[in-house]
Amino acid sequence: SETKKIAVIAGDGIGPEVVAEAIKVMKKTEELFGYKFEFEHGLFGGIAIDEKGTPLPQETLDICQKADAVLLGAVGGPKWDNNSKELRPETGLLGIRKALGLFSNIRPAVVFDCLKDASTLKPEVLEGTDLIVVRELTGGIYFGEKFRREGAQGEEAVDTCVYNVTEIERIVRQAFEVAQKRSKRLASVDKANVLETSRLWRETVNRIAPEYSDVEVEHVLVDNCAMQLLRRPSSFDVIVTENMFGDILSDEAAMLTGSIGMLSSASLGEGSFGLYEPVHGSAPDIAGQGIANPIATILSVALMFRLTFGYEDAATAIETAVKNVLDAGHRTGDIAVDKSKAIGTGAMGDLIVAAL
Amino acid sequence: SETKKIAVIAGDGIGPEVVAEAIKVMKKTEELFGYKFEFEHGLFGGIAIDEKGTPLPQETLDICQKADAVLLGAVGGPKWDNNSKELRPETGLLGIRKALGLFSNIRPAVVFDCLKDASTLKPEVLEGTDLIVVRELTGGIYFGEKFRREGAQGEEAVDTCVYNVTEIERIVRQAFEVAQKRSKRLASVDKANVLETSRLWRETVNRIAPEYSDVEVEHVLVDNCAMQLLRRPSSFDVIVTENMFGDILSDEAAMLTGSIGMLSSASLGEGSFGLYEPVHGSAPDIAGQGIANPIATILSVALMFRLTFGYEDAATAIETAVKNVLDAGHRTGDIAVDKSKAIGTGAMGDLIVAAL
Ligand SMILES: CC(C)[C@H](C(=O)O)[C@@H](O)C(=O)O
Ligand SMILES: CC(C)[C@H](C(=O)O)[C@@H](O)C(=O)O
Repeated sequence: SETKKIAVIAGDGIGPEVVAEAIKVMKKTEELFGYKFEFEHGLFGGIAIDEKGTPLPQETLDICQKADAVLLGAVGGPKWDNNSKELRPETGLLGIRKALGLFSNIRPAVVFDCLKDASTLKPEVLEGTDLIVVRELTGGIYFGEKFRREGAQGEEAVDTCVYNVTEIERIVRQAFEVAQKRSKRLASVDKANVLETSRLWRETVNRIAPEYSDVEVEHVLVDNCAMQLLRRPSSFDVIVTENMFGDILSDEAAMLTGSIGMLSSASLGEGSFGLYEPVHGSAPDIAGQGIANPIATILSVALMFRLTFGYEDAATAIETAVKNVLDAGHRTGDIAVDKSKAIGTGAMGDLIVAAL
Repeated sequence: SETKKIAVIAGDGIGPEVVAEAIKVMKKTEELFGYKFEFEHGLFGGIAIDEKGTPLPQETLDICQKADAVLLGAVGGPKWDNNSKELRPETGLLGIRKALGLFSNIRPAVVFDCLKDASTLKPEVLEGTDLIVVRELTGGIYFGEKFRREGAQGEEAVDTCVYNVTEIERIVRQAFEVAQKRSKRLASVDKANVLETSRLWRETVNRIAPEYSDVEVEHVLVDNCAMQLLRRPSSFDVIVTENMFGDILSDEAAMLTGSIGMLSSASLGEGSFGLYEPVHGSAPDIAGQGIANPIATILSVALMFRLTFGYEDAATAIETAVKNVLDAGHRTGDIAVDKSKAIGTGAMGDLIVAAL
């Protein structure tokens, strides 16, 4: 089959280590399924600040723009935390989302069997929790005008939250489509009792809902959603919301599964292009030690295969291999009950490759 | 002692029922401690929309402005949910906060012994959880300019989030003072990696922190805070944050205690004036049945006595009475294990009065 170009952005902290295992897995699928991948590596985040003076060098953006999909490890670390805005890894992250038009962030929150005790929630509450947060990623208060000014009461800071109907419609449609493929329940989260952007959001959801009449829509206020995620996590299926609320709620949802180290995510635009990355961060405290868990990144590859390439066979094979390796009792340190039996990043990658 | 004027806003749903019990308790403290209260009742919320055509009638505002403190029951209900903005109960709530200058919302999240199993969190995770969220209440995206406009991509909605240093400083100072009276740990929550208002917030916290050198300050990003509240709730003491984040996080914090039906809150301005209300809503489904739990409202009175009037003796007496009644096994339906033994709103109020 046709060669797929994958831009690889290993990033900072444990990023390079976990990405290396994901590449092993992709190479194995070339052998097994006859797919062809071409990898191009780009500097991004803290390492790009250090080496190129900017978190998102133009070369990296070019590599991504020429690619069919992007695999991202992790970015950031304390080293760059006190930098000025233009020299911070997050600025690169926001820049790449905008430049690549990745308006939709898909974050599944599922409970892994081997981690069900890792949640702080009671097992009976967690039982059956399997939801997806669809977060708008290139609009809202993240990207609106921001500035300082002198006011009557001293210095003033301003952030602007803007949404137009086109932006709302495309993310909401995508969420409806995701819901149609699952339990056909969509919770749209907003703060329509306070915000004008939320009122436009809610009107838009209501306007297009009849086109997806098989999906049951519920409007939930963001504060109430933060509570209901705790009270009845398993009752949610697909949650769609704007950028800032999605940032908060997707992290809350991920954490309540107890499986945050195993969760993958996809950031999508128009068409099939997408950027895939683990939900966890760059974990600077364990970077370079070869003990990070590569599973979230490997599962991000499965997501890429499914959503961008339509390689359902290889996607399922990866997910099954991960499951089998876990079922056989292999664990990296973060998920091991008996830490003395924990295996390293490379060993976990090799086992998954062998199980494919 | 001098007569204190209390504006009583019973509001909607179960509001009038729970407020009636709180008044019983206040009257009893007049007898026991020699205090004198004068109650003036005002219409507010849905009932004010129905009777006066506005959620916050001028008469009600006048009553509040002449009072030393306000006791609020609950507002809102499905009946008014689809009204236009000016005719919604929430608009009254935002209006009263602004008109009375209530810039600080104090929301304790504590676990009640008799409810510790009601939480969806594991008991060992919940153990020792006792935190306060100090939420900025009259600024930010709630009160910034909001409008619609026609853009290149269709209709557009805009919300503006504005904070000036003066607003930030007064709420942060108050949080420092709350922290000084507790475990001397303050978590300031923002999104300084994205928002300009958050950067001004963080700078302000850092600037005034040296004046409270006995308090240990931690900056937490809002998405991370949503996670950490779940992972290590008992490690938080005082959390201070802006209006929108505070709305979400205080509800998350309240829900994780499992005690949401028992929690009280205070909204304060400059000086000792304050508005006190239970954290729970108007519960339209059980309104008028005489089965609502009045404890959160009664504990809001204790908070009023302590924070506005300095009546520490009566505040403590109320809290002890509530504890004793609960310890003796009395329960309203919401907190009863054996629902058949549940007592009503009035009976619970009477028991607390008797225990005083
Ligand atoms: C690092 C930060 C800018 C980013 C965000 O807020 O979007 C992160 O929290 C995320 O969710 O990917
Ligand atoms: C009803 C609503 C406007 C209000 C708010 O968002 O402030 C409520 O959620 C609260 O927290 O008191």
